Amino acid sequence: MNGTTLPSVAAPVNLADLRAAARRRLDPAHDDFFAGGAGDERTVRDNEAAFDAYRVLPRVLRGVGARDLRVELFGETVSMPVLASPTAFHRLAHPDGEAGCARAIAAAGTIMVVSMAATTPVETIAAAVATMPPRPAPASGPPRPPKLWFQLYPQPDLAFTESVIRRAEAAGCGALVVTVDSPVFGRRERDLRHGFLDLPDGLCCENMRDPVTGEIRAITMDAALDWRRIDWLRETTRLPLVLKGVLHPADAALAVEHGVDAVLVSNHGGRQLDGVPASVDALPAVVDAVAGRLPVLLDGGVRRGTDVLTALALGAVAVGVGRPVLWGLAAGGEMGVRQVLELLRADLDRAMALAGADSPAAITPDLVTPAVGGRAWPVGVRR
Amino acid sequence: MNGTTLPSVAAPVNLADLRAAARRRLDPAHDDFFAGGAGDERTVRDNEAAFDAYRVLPRVLRGVGARDLRVELFGETVSMPVLASPTAFHRLAHPDGEAGCARAIAAAGTIMVVSMAATTPVETIAAAVATMPPRPAPASGPPRPPKLWFQLYPQPDLAFTESVIRRAEAAGCGALVVTVDSPVFGRRERDLRHGFLDLPDGLCCENMRDPVTGEIRAITMDAALDWRRIDWLRETTRLPLVLKGVLHPADAALAVEHGVDAVLVSNHGGRQLDGVPASVDALPAVVDAVAGRLPVLLDGGVRRGTDVLTALALGAVAVGVGRPVLWGLAAGGEMGVRQVLELLRADLDRAMALAGADSPAAITPDLVTPAVGGRAWPVGVRR
Amino acid sequence: MNGTTLPSVAAPVNLADLRAAARRRLDPAHDDFFAGGAGDERTVRDNEAAFDAYRVLPRVLRGVGARDLRVELFGETVSMPVLASPTAFHRLAHPDGEAGCARAIAAAGTIMVVSMAATTPVETIAAAVATMPPRPAPASGPPRPPKLWFQLYPQPDLAFTESVIRRAEAAGCGALVVTVDSPVFGRRERDLRHGFLDLPDGLCCENMRDPVTGEIRAITMDAALDWRRIDWLRETTRLPLVLKGVLHPADAALAVEHGVDAVLVSNHGGRQLDGVPASVDALPAVVDAVAGRLPVLLDGGVRRGTDVLTALALGAVAVGVGRPVLWGLAAGGEMGVRQVLELLRADLDRAMALAGADSPAAITPDLVTPAVGGRAWPVGVRR
Amino acid sequence: MNGTTLPSVAAPVNLADLRAAARRRLDPAHDDFFAGGAGDERTVRDNEAAFDAYRVLPRVLRGVGARDLRVELFGETVSMPVLASPTAFHRLAHPDGEAGCARAIAAAGTIMVVSMAATTPVETIAAAVATMPPRPAPASGPPRPPKLWFQLYPQPDLAFTESVIRRAEAAGCGALVVTVDSPVFGRRERDLRHGFLDLPDGLCCENMRDPVTGEIRAITMDAALDWRRIDWLRETTRLPLVLKGVLHPADAALAVEHGVDAVLVSNHGGRQLDGVPASVDALPAVVDAVAGRLPVLLDGGVRRGTDVLTALALGAVAVGVGRPVLWGLAAGGEMGVRQVLELLRADLDRAMALAGADSPAAITPDLVTPAVGGRAWPVGVRR
Repeated sequence: MNGTTLPSVAAPVNLADLRAAARRRLDPAHDDFFAGGAGDERTVRDNEAAFDAYRVLPRVLRGVGARDLRVELFGETVSMPVLASPTAFHRLAHPDGEAGCARAIAAAGTIMVVSMAATTPVETIAAAVATMPPRPAPASGPPRPPKLWFQLYPQPDLAFTESVIRRAEAAGCGALVVTVDSPVFGRRERDLRHGFLDLPDGLCCENMRDPVTGEIRAITMDAALDWRRIDWLRETTRLPLVLKGVLHPADAALAVEHGVDAVLVSNHGGRQLDGVPASVDALPAVVDAVAGRLPVLLDGGVRRGTDVLTALALGAVAVGVGRPVLWGLAAGGEMGVRQVLELLRADLDRAMALAGADSPAAITPDLVTPAVGGRAWPVGVRR
Repeated sequence: MNGTTLPSVAAPVNLADLRAAARRRLDPAHDDFFAGGAGDERTVRDNEAAFDAYRVLPRVLRGVGARDLRVELFGETVSMPVLASPTAFHRLAHPDGEAGCARAIAAAGTIMVVSMAATTPVETIAAAVATMPPRPAPASGPPRPPKLWFQLYPQPDLAFTESVIRRAEAAGCGALVVTVDSPVFGRRERDLRHGFLDLPDGLCCENMRDPVTGEIRAITMDAALDWRRIDWLRETTRLPLVLKGVLHPADAALAVEHGVDAVLVSNHGGRQLDGVPASVDALPAVVDAVAGRLPVLLDGGVRRGTDVLTALALGAVAVGVGRPVLWGLAAGGEMGVRQVLELLRADLDRAMALAGADSPAAITPDLVTPAVGGRAWPVGVRR
Repeated sequence: MNGTTLPSVAAPVNLADLRAAARRRLDPAHDDFFAGGAGDERTVRDNEAAFDAYRVLPRVLRGVGARDLRVELFGETVSMPVLASPTAFHRLAHPDGEAGCARAIAAAGTIMVVSMAATTPVETIAAAVATMPPRPAPASGPPRPPKLWFQLYPQPDLAFTESVIRRAEAAGCGALVVTVDSPVFGRRERDLRHGFLDLPDGLCCENMRDPVTGEIRAITMDAALDWRRIDWLRETTRLPLVLKGVLHPADAALAVEHGVDAVLVSNHGGRQLDGVPASVDALPAVVDAVAGRLPVLLDGGVRRGTDVLTALALGAVAVGVGRPVLWGLAAGGEMGVRQVLELLRADLDRAMALAGADSPAAITPDLVTPAVGGRAWPVGVRR
Repeated sequence: MNGTTLPSVAAPVNLADLRAAARRRLDPAHDDFFAGGAGDERTVRDNEAAFDAYRVLPRVLRGVGARDLRVELFGETVSMPVLASPTAFHRLAHPDGEAGCARAIAAAGTIMVVSMAATTPVETIAAAVATMPPRPAPASGPPRPPKLWFQLYPQPDLAFTESVIRRAEAAGCGALVVTVDSPVFGRRERDLRHGFLDLPDGLCCENMRDPVTGEIRAITMDAALDWRRIDWLRETTRLPLVLKGVLHPADAALAVEHGVDAVLVSNHGGRQLDGVPASVDALPAVVDAVAGRLPVLLDGGVRRGTDVLTALALGAVAVGVGRPVLWGLAAGGEMGVRQVLELLRADLDRAMALAGADSPAAITPDLVTPAVGGRAWPVGVRR
């Protein structure tokens, strides 16, 4: 490693390599914090496994020499339909922290959703992004890095909540991702066994700083949260609202009625209620309920280009990745995150070429077929 | 351990911890007696595994700050929809025996079903419960511990059977749980291999004491048992009758006709006939057959709050736990049983909050969806 | 062991114990000959595993104190719906051979199907059976042991085939079990690897002795075999004809048309064509095709009382067991076979009591429900 | 080994033996090159596993003494419905290379599809075949070895593509197998880990020799490839065109419209896009779309006679084998390939006899039934 290039993880072939590298570098309690989930971690495992129960049914001879992976989200162009979902405590994973992560994501031409539990102030993250040169997109990438989005746990103290929103707005964030799957805290048994209950000295949730006292407030999980708070948010900010954590189609329909701008199908990486469906299994019913009135996003278990392709074929406009970004960060800091995103981009590009889709819009529902028991059911055979 | 506080198992995170602690403390033959089942123990395993084939489909933004877990059973309020199903030989598990167990269950504000094979007289158990202070329920618990219920294997000797019922009534039991799945004894191969065929010296089935001779009678499995005996029981006592061991919907319909007060879907913890369905798999058809004319309960395989939630979403009004109570008892006596019940209560409370249900009545059928092969089928997609 | 009682395998708890004991005593090549099957042995495994995909849905309170396991087959009473399917080379398993096996089966009050590949002449086997005292059936068993049945591979040499039939008739056999699943020999790779291609010196297929030359003929698998040969058999003997090896419902329908007396659903223990369905999976369609015009039997994978119950609920009138008889024979000679049959009888009796069926006729279709992926599907829920 | 007979692998019992022998002889990087696939190799595994999810439902008593395995393909007779699919780099596996392989395949009376990535010129391969004596078919085989077919990756340089076609025509090839599943190169992670990126010195793709410069050109994966190129091929050669790599039924329908002569359902052995269906799972919908207007072939995962029978019952006219030929070649050169093909022929012949089919035409759809979770679903029972 010399001073002019970023350190890199030697030749990771796939995301699993970076996951293994991250495990080698992290304190086991921290690795378990990032890897673990609620209860028996059925949903953690299911998120990944569920993608294996779909098969891609490729088209051939479609002339896919000129592929364009870009998608539009709230009027902005993103270089591929893969965002970085919010994840907590980046400085626990690597000194590069949220700022390094943000630079890597900006370099990839896509969106970082800044966590309310970030260990770096949103303003610092935004400043890091601002220093990035326009991303040299191979084909016709966007002229500048897309904006950050900001993730919000609505706090019972409305004034404080509003102050956080104003910080995000002032930092130039392009959307508010409102987490609604956390009326109480998910019980993560790995953390209980490690006694990992708080951040180590020197790290804190910088976006929870009280504007009056200057002290860091604890993030409150608010069990009283209901749709009236969404209406209040709708009135409080002009930022697009993305409702994160919707799994039930009835809630997706309510989201449309309450005027949010997008729904993000998510089970919080299996960290809130163990035993809920894998995100990709919940997706079709949500897409059906929304009926095109809103864009639907998904996160949970995306590890391969075919996972992205599957989610888009089932109706998502884009997906988020959470743990893979942390693996890259832990394994190699900013450069590790770049590797994660470029591996995913290349994998998606290849999958699209091989499936005969030259753009996200060309990823039609007929390109994917469900499987049973981990094995494809004969295509087109009704059971 | 000092004299003023009950001994406790250090920081069990979940019921599996208590199960492991119990195994460490028990004689292997006794552990196998509690853990084992009939035949190849397919149903033992299936009881737990079957819950993994359902997924909870949570609602969000439902304002679940004020949750109330109480349910009404035969006019009495129970602090949560989790009872202690009858299990034999508590003093084999721990010196605290049935009395300690009963105190813990009363402290939790719920019902203990006293086993006909208890190693403590029902009167002693009732006396232990009577000494308990009114449970300090966090929200609005019942003013006093709920009554005991009493489990009955109807004996061919009707006079003796009646004498047992009179003892249960006199001890203040609130219902009679009539086990009907045992026309013959289930063959438990672990016990045969251990040669575990009888209680050790000093322990006996105290509720089988002959009122005339004072001797302990053997519990007879009566293959001739039929619905006429249920009619006789109906005439013999005013206690509510709970029919335990119903799996076939046709029997559930007959139960309604014969005027029993509740049906308990159970396969006797997989200890009677190996190869019958998991309780939760048998539940929907029983609920359908009963059609709301009776409350339906379930036991078998409940280990997590989401298991309780699943059973209630499928139509049960409450569930019983058997082996977990024994794990608590073996691991830590009375305090171990308390830990089991409070872990379950907290897990259920958390699951309800995260699923958007603020009371058992709010656990509607749409909150649960079946899965295939241990993986959720896409929600709302018909196969 | 003293001289007056038969040697016994100490306390086998279930058939798996006898299987393990057999393995310990047999030459590995011989154990593999008995245990192995064709190709990758998928069907061998599937025969047993398939029963695990059904669940027994028991009835309760049916007053099953007086159970009667007897069934009628071709006008004769058998003590239980479990026969001994034909298996080759008994003297390879134990010196007691077919004669000892026959005595044990007669003692159990059921039918032995003598193999055409028996290492003992059918006349000797019949003589062994004739020495048995009438079986002391606990309830109301038959006054004398049921007749032997005789298994036939129809040989291209009709005169020789007829001579074999005449021997079977003269020996008092009660039916002819015609194996039709063997137009060519199944390829058993374990035997090829062992080089096990022929019987050791001193053993031969005694029922293949040429009536003219006195020499032992090789059993010919006749690929030209067709329904005309069944018609010829029908004209050649008055013995009831049981067609063994039917899996396809169209063949079951043809069997009715050609006037055979019973169909035995079998895949030859997975020893002929690997990849055919488990017997129990093929049963329903055959029962449907036969539509009550013939009795249907089944063999393959029966190891537990619930397996017998499952087959009967799906429409079989009785089942055969093959390998379990060999396990008993290898493990303990005649007494081992007795243990196998009495374990099975007790297991079936218990299963019937616990399922609420006091006779084979009471084992109705609603007592069994299919499962998916080794787990019961919610009863009564259509998928 | 003496000079007059070919060396042989001692007594391989099945193809798995040859696969193991190949692994022992090959450089691990080369073994991984042949064995590996794209991504997580789900499709590689699925190709084989998927056949296990079908069951053969045999007919009996059909008089199958005179079996004839021959099929007609483009007016020529092949000795059995099993071809050798194109595979690259035979001289990497064994010095006998493509020429030895071709002799073995000709000896078996079937067709070798010469790979565009062969390490031997097509002319040399054709010359090797020409030296073979007419195959002594046991029954009534063809009078001479069938022609070679030639596999083509259409190159962007049309003139060069045409020159390759002319070489294939001049060498007497009987059909052109056009691979359409490779708009980009599949990413094989085993090769990346080994750094196996190019042929060793002395080996090259002989069919890529530039007719002008005499140099070896690299095979270009052409992402721009579309149906117009198929039309161009249709006009450029009179050879029958086989479209290889079709999985989507819509593409099969287009193939009919564009006048190709056959469709080969294939996923390139799982080497192009991981996560596509197993070939046999994609087959039924393609057969349905083609509706008899074209012959449909299949390759991927064929290892047993029952696999061939399954594919034919589902509508294929013949199947190809890829890796098994390489296993034979690596294990024993020309003789190893012979062993592979004769093992497969014998296995298919036996399977057909045991299933009651005396010719490929007699392999009707009712002979195969799908299974669920690796276990046959009750035959004829709709789910």
